[in-house]
Amino acid sequence: MTAIPDWTRALLDAPTYATLATLNSDGSPQLTEMWVARDEETVIFSSVAGRQKPKNIARDPRVSVLLVDPDSPFRYSEIRGTAEVVDDPGELIQDLAQKYTGKAWPADPPGAQRVIIRLTPTRVHEKKG
Amino acid sequence: MTAIPDWTRALLDAPTYATLATLNSDGSPQLTEMWVARDEETVIFSSVAGRQKPKNIARDPRVSVLLVDPDSPFRYSEIRGTAEVVDDPGELIQDLAQKYTGKAWPADPPGAQRVIIRLTPTRVHEKKG
Repeated sequence: MTAIPDWTRALLDAPTYATLATLNSDGSPQLTEMWVARDEETVIFSSVAGRQKPKNIARDPRVSVLLVDPDSPFRYSEIRGTAEVVDDPGELIQDLAQKYTGKAWPADPPGAQRVIIRLTPTRVHEKKG
Repeated sequence: MTAIPDWTRALLDAPTYATLATLNSDGSPQLTEMWVARDEETVIFSSVAGRQKPKNIARDPRVSVLLVDPDSPFRYSEIRGTAEVVDDPGELIQDLAQKYTGKAWPADPPGAQRVIIRLTPTRVHEKKG
């Protein structure tokens, strides 16, 4: 585990979109665009059980996240580390919806089980231009 | 090889920033933010020989690219495929600089050898909201 430096912390605490890379079963990379938040020194995302991302992480926990400065696309932070998937009592998606849209999250489809993807950083690379 | 669908083609032809995922020597994902262009049914990037991305691709050609609609962060296209690294006579970086900044590319450091990363798509996943 490594501490999250200040500039990356600020990107995580603002409504910055994150690109999350996981590894497919054949080892190839998979990318998705995500809402993101910070919980102390970990990076957290909301997903739904059974989707590709949590399935990939359960098989191989190595992930990478890219956060791009909304004011300058050549300033960005890459956070590498390992992730785990844990059950979500249902509150993270509401916190994220408020953060990014200022509104409540509409109901998930019946039977959808929310999960939290929690990334513990091992390396943060800030490129500030 | 798969044909690039129209909406993804439009994102590639506009000055959209791309997130490129390659695989490190230990198989973990590496992410960077890139300028991008299209050459017929391939996706092309400019890099410099010796950097992490071309080194990773030479070892394992499997890559993924995410293009996010600048008007709506939840509309995006993921392009998966295999990439190769070829020498660049030096023109792609100039074309990209014109496309993204409207200006010429300033000189590279002495000794820098420009290369083209050329991705042949095998699968395109468009998420239009």
